[in-house]
Amino acid sequence: MRVRFAETDAQGIAHHASYLVWFETARIEYLRRFDGGYPGLRQQGIEATTSEVHVRYRQPAEFDDSLVVHTRCIDLRGARFRYEYVVERDGEAIADGWTGHACVDAKTMRPTRVPGWLVEAITAAESAAP
Amino acid sequence: MRVRFAETDAQGIAHHASYLVWFETARIEYLRRFDGGYPGLRQQGIEATTSEVHVRYRQPAEFDDSLVVHTRCIDLRGARFRYEYVVERDGEAIADGWTGHACVDAKTMRPTRVPGWLVEAITAAESAAP
Amino acid sequence: MRVRFAETDAQGIAHHASYLVWFETARIEYLRRFDGGYPGLRQQGIEATTSEVHVRYRQPAEFDDSLVVHTRCIDLRGARFRYEYVVERDGEAIADGWTGHACVDAKTMRPTRVPGWLVEAITAAESAAP
Amino acid sequence: MRVRFAETDAQGIAHHASYLVWFETARIEYLRRFDGGYPGLRQQGIEATTSEVHVRYRQPAEFDDSLVVHTRCIDLRGARFRYEYVVERDGEAIADGWTGHACVDAKTMRPTRVPGWLVEAITAAESAAP
Repeated sequence: MRVRFAETDAQGIAHHASYLVWFETARIEYLRRFDGGYPGLRQQGIEATTSEVHVRYRQPAEFDDSLVVHTRCIDLRGARFRYEYVVERDGEAIADGWTGHACVDAKTMRPTRVPGWLVEAITAAESAAP
Repeated sequence: MRVRFAETDAQGIAHHASYLVWFETARIEYLRRFDGGYPGLRQQGIEATTSEVHVRYRQPAEFDDSLVVHTRCIDLRGARFRYEYVVERDGEAIADGWTGHACVDAKTMRPTRVPGWLVEAITAAESAAP
Repeated sequence: MRVRFAETDAQGIAHHASYLVWFETARIEYLRRFDGGYPGLRQQGIEATTSEVHVRYRQPAEFDDSLVVHTRCIDLRGARFRYEYVVERDGEAIADGWTGHACVDAKTMRPTRVPGWLVEAITAAESAAP
Repeated sequence: MRVRFAETDAQGIAHHASYLVWFETARIEYLRRFDGGYPGLRQQGIEATTSEVHVRYRQPAEFDDSLVVHTRCIDLRGARFRYEYVVERDGEAIADGWTGHACVDAKTMRPTRVPGWLVEAITAAESAAP
């Protein structure tokens, strides 16, 4: 993805909150491979809430930089799961982080297990990854 | 309201999309006077959609500038209504604009008349304004 | 571009301010064809400010919608120029708008003519367009 | 501060990236007490960069919620400092977090010590806090 002008701030760099939006975009692209992805989950009445985030900024990103966000899903347990991220520019890691999530029933907002088909699909995908 | 650092961009000024957020904040403060305001409208199953926006930028706003957004509701007709805005800094108008809206049923998203009590309250408020 | 989750609001649709960010992204992609594009302009000490925006929303955009933003530059005159936009989803126009801009000297922030090479390049590109 | 409508997402709650903007706003208000605050620092040629952020979300915040963000500066050492935050609604903590920062020379972007007057002022303020 490219750093949008609207994502920069008066320091001339991408605002630090933008990384959470990029992480989210990466999660959604990650889930897209699986049976309808995040929109599919939502149609099944399941929401994924964000319970914790952590980002380390190593080098600033600038307007129009072309970035690659690597992500993988780790620690799927019951209703909870986590993602890890590395943001790269020209092959150099400029930031990394992780986010914690929980599946909830969209009506009651109470925790609900990650659907079995998704656990299996993600586990298979991650075990096949290099 | 004060210009947030996150609202600035790499030109060192408030990003032009921020003004629409300030307009929205001003609309919500405007409606707060009336019977539960915008949250109240939503609880009655009515959503206000935005159908058109227009902004003229005269002077840039900078980080930490203290701004006042003047707004008034005009042209209430059936399901439709409009707001006008002037953004002031130290008594000088630095931007102005207007937005067009329509009330819709939150379930069907079809147009529905602005509730009578709100029409009356706004008309009374605006006719009392200097 | 795809509608990001962070761009949606509690009405379940893309927030109306997001369209200005999409317009900006489209402008930058449009300029990318010409000699360094917008980053190139900035390196030459020229900033493009936004002086006016107008958007008409016809149909709401939803999370994960795949949108195409058509844009073209019109009315290049002295320091000023305008862009027109149409936002399409599945070939249907769901919004349109225009934005007005002025080139300024990045140091003095005073108006400066759009560089001749850019006027010629844009005029050639637009006259070649269908 | 009140949760803005633009800060909500299609889950009907405040988007998790918004909290970083609220934290930033709280830092700026915190610094406002000291000799020109953050704008003052910037005028002295010092930028404060963000090197790390962490947020835990306990309860979702909703549109128009009135929130209080408590913050304090901790661990001032050389060029580095940290802030802690608690976000409260009606006296209940709904989120907390911390952010790490470094002072840099605005021209070279190299680390520079937090100005002595600011260290002293913050230390005095924090030791006086209950």
